[in-house]
Amino acid sequence: MLIEFSIVPIGTSSSLSARVAEVLDIVDSSGLPYMLTPMGTIVEGEWNDLMRLVRECHRKMMKNEERVLTSILIDDRKGKTGRMDRKIRSVEKRLGRSLKK
Amino acid sequence: MLIEFSIVPIGTSSSLSARVAEVLDIVDSSGLPYMLTPMGTIVEGEWNDLMRLVRECHRKMMKNEERVLTSILIDDRKGKTGRMDRKIRSVEKRLGRSLKK
Amino acid sequence: MLIEFSIVPIGTSSSLSARVAEVLDIVDSSGLPYMLTPMGTIVEGEWNDLMRLVRECHRKMMKNEERVLTSILIDDRKGKTGRMDRKIRSVEKRLGRSLKK
Amino acid sequence: MLIEFSIVPIGTSSSLSARVAEVLDIVDSSGLPYMLTPMGTIVEGEWNDLMRLVRECHRKMMKNEERVLTSILIDDRKGKTGRMDRKIRSVEKRLGRSLKK
Repeated sequence: MLIEFSIVPIGTSSSLSARVAEVLDIVDSSGLPYMLTPMGTIVEGEWNDLMRLVRECHRKMMKNEERVLTSILIDDRKGKTGRMDRKIRSVEKRLGRSLKK
Repeated sequence: MLIEFSIVPIGTSSSLSARVAEVLDIVDSSGLPYMLTPMGTIVEGEWNDLMRLVRECHRKMMKNEERVLTSILIDDRKGKTGRMDRKIRSVEKRLGRSLKK
Repeated sequence: MLIEFSIVPIGTSSSLSARVAEVLDIVDSSGLPYMLTPMGTIVEGEWNDLMRLVRECHRKMMKNEERVLTSILIDDRKGKTGRMDRKIRSVEKRLGRSLKK
Repeated sequence: MLIEFSIVPIGTSSSLSARVAEVLDIVDSSGLPYMLTPMGTIVEGEWNDLMRLVRECHRKMMKNEERVLTSILIDDRKGKTGRMDRKIRSVEKRLGRSLKK
């Protein structure tokens, strides 16, 4: 199962990059494969591990903020793992070329 | 905490309204306050209850489908409950009029 | 075509309900059918009208804020209109009961 | 302005990677800076160029499908460009280390 999530504090002027760094430290400690994109964090794993991770990140943010918006998008496909790399390679194969990094 | 979630099967021609009805039955059994909109389902509760509910709905959908996309948007605000009604009333008050239903 | 959109200022302590009221005034002036939910605004129409509307709302918000996150979810189905009501009635029919309002 | 978008056909069994490849060809032709992630496509540009691009991708998908869900997340920040790289570098600087690719 792949998820992309993002956590945004509302009504604060604190730096978002500082907050994202705190969250990334938690994600990194989880040991799950992940990727930071300019719009969110993508992590691969099983439901319970992933949701425990997002809950921990969300709570970390709530400690310092009055209001937080967290979005989670889940892409679940039976019997498939290693999809973080595979999904992009599968598109590259169709295109017959590598995508810019 | 308010969430809006939606669960969509990919690669199937089954009726979405039948699938949504199955999910709504699960949401209704939870006893949590909820609202079906044309674009998703909004439920109010605590993190663990809400995520247990979404997991149950997601798994119900995965039983019959190969691939499922589930999106969850969480709006969490310290010390606030009963926000399903209050958020709209608060906007109506600012507008000085009721909104169309 | 149905869309749900939401517009959130980042790094501000201004009241969200005041901001949402400004946006709702713009949506109301468009003449398009719409519905405010506790998590966003749902509007029905054609691509160009809807995107012009969201752009106007987004720009209104940007006038007073440094940074804005706007999300848009589009549900487009060939040859179907009047879906704002119909999608819910279709689920109610499957359930064999009306949903709580 | 940065956007992340994804376009998903509902009620079809066609390969998603083939569909994504068609959309990526359109994005590539636009000349705008972009990045394919395992969960969507991130593009940087101005509102009108970006929305014209997403509309073209959405319409390409609608040609072959009955129903399509398109999601767009917009992150707009006054006076900032080149944010596709900068947002990640800014987090890396806070973390004091490079992120895995």
